[in-house]
Order: sequence, then C-alpha cells, then structure tokens
Amino acid sequence: MAPEAMRWSTVNCTISRTMDVLGEKWTFHVLREIFVGIRRFEDIRARAEIPRQVLTDRLTALIDRGLLRRVPYRLPGQRERYEYRMTKAGLDLYPVLVAMVQWGDEHLPLDGGPPLVARHRGCEEEVSIVMRCAAGHEPPPREIAFRPGPTAEPR
Amino acid sequence: MAPEAMRWSTVNCTISRTMDVLGEKWTFHVLREIFVGIRRFEDIRARAEIPRQVLTDRLTALIDRGLLRRVPYRLPGQRERYEYRMTKAGLDLYPVLVAMVQWGDEHLPLDGGPPLVARHRGCEEEVSIVMRCAAGHEPPPREIAFRPGPTAEPR
Repeated sequence: MAPEAMRWSTVNCTISRTMDVLGEKWTFHVLREIFVGIRRFEDIRARAEIPRQVLTDRLTALIDRGLLRRVPYRLPGQRERYEYRMTKAGLDLYPVLVAMVQWGDEHLPLDGGPPLVARHRGCEEEVSIVMRCAAGHEPPPREIAFRPGPTAEPR
Repeated sequence: MAPEAMRWSTVNCTISRTMDVLGEKWTFHVLREIFVGIRRFEDIRARAEIPRQVLTDRLTALIDRGLLRRVPYRLPGQRERYEYRMTKAGLDLYPVLVAMVQWGDEHLPLDGGPPLVARHRGCEEEVSIVMRCAAGHEPPPREIAFRPGPTAEPR
C-alpha cells in the first residue's frame, strides 16, 4: 500500500543538494540580474532593490559555489572594482530560469503579456523548455516519473 | 555604457512572481515528495524530515496558490484524512524540477551516479530538458538572452 518512494531516503536527494546551492529567493534575483546583463554591484543593488549586505552575502556564496566569477574593471579616476559573470556552472542554470519564466507566464500571467522573454540571440525567436526522453519522445508531465537511481539510499 | 536591462524595472518580473509562489527551500521538498508519489501528511513529514508546522504551512500555501489539491481518504476504523495531489499548475512545475535535477547531476555529481532519475513512464528512457526556439533551434545557454516583453516597465 505504501508508495514505492517511501522505501528510499532523501538523504542525498539531488533537489535538496541543488537547493542548498540556489538557497532562496534572493539568489534567484541575483542570478536573474547577471543573466540579463547587469554585472556590477551597484547596478544589481539598485535595479533588484536587494539590501547591500544580502547582496554581498549572496554574491560571495555564488562565487564560493562556482556559479559566478569576479572580473576586475576600473573606470577613469576611480579605484578598481569588480563585475560578476557567470561561470559554465552558472550558465547551465539557464534551463531552470527559463522553466520558471515559462511556468510563471502560463500560471501567473499579466494582462498584456510577459515582461521578460527568453529569445535565441540572432534569430530572436522565443525559447521554450521541452522535456525529451532518450528515445526522442516529448512526454507531458503526467508521463514523467522520478525513479530511484544507482545511488538511491534505502530508508 | 549601462547595460540595456538597467532601463527596465523588476517590478513585475516573472521570476520574482514565480519565486513568490515557490517561496523557499521547503516548498521544493514538499513538491518533490508529491512528484515521487508521497501524498499523505505523515509520509511526507517522515520521509522529508520536515517539521510538522512548516509542512502544514507549506501545504496550505501550495493549496491556496492552486498547485495542490486535497483529496479525502479513510483507512478502516480511522477518521477521514486527506492526501495531496498536484493540480495542472503543480504538474506544470515538472520542467523546473527536472531542470534542477539535471543541473545537480552535472554540477554536484555523486560518486556512483544519481539518486533520482526522471524517466518517461512506459518507455522508461531518461528525460532531459532541452531549450528550443520557435524556429526549431536548440541553442546553448550563451545563445539565449532575456529581452523585455510587452509589459516591461521602464525604470
């Protein structure tokens, strides 16, 4: 009678481990800023209205986790500063962000359409998220199941 | 010199509005349990090790936001209880969860492989996330850009 998943532990769950990195709401706001090309501390703080200390903490954590890197720059007559750029691991979060935007556009729509659209640079067509299995099918959500993998831990 | 996105406000950002619903780390844990077929309060609490009050709060919030629905059931000799099932809006979060698992499997890998694998029910092939534009291209992250949409608000 018990669901199959009750036999498996969540101790090494990939979703938990990923959320340990992505952390919480502010982290997604910081990532969003970098994704849209806002790379400097003052710009991120001003546009996203993130408290200064929170932004410092989140940027440090994202660097420590390997999602961002700091690149020095210097404006004429000013001290050296840093801007923040995505690493490969950071860029690979694009599907997570695009999937969130796609969900929000469908289930939390605004009158008049979306404020933010993911587009393919160059052809400028809208980008959407597709789930595809290794056999080439594109199953709807109801046809997808999370199964225990090789490191699933019995409870 | 300023990035284009500095001209646009984050006031109605889809990522912010989506994170207002998804909220925080525990929410993803609750969703994960329901996705893997754990639907009863005591089962979710025990397997995910979520404090009772937090679980109550998250379930209530997810119902209020239309992601879960409560379905009554009764075991012999016991009072009526509820289990929690995904609505259409909840099921549509599958791409977000699968994208998170895919990212974790690549960037936070475990020795021996993943503990959790998304599969296509029936053919049992592994499911992955693809970003595809309306012209049929499948661009890598570097070729995707978030552009202002029709409801983008100037700052």
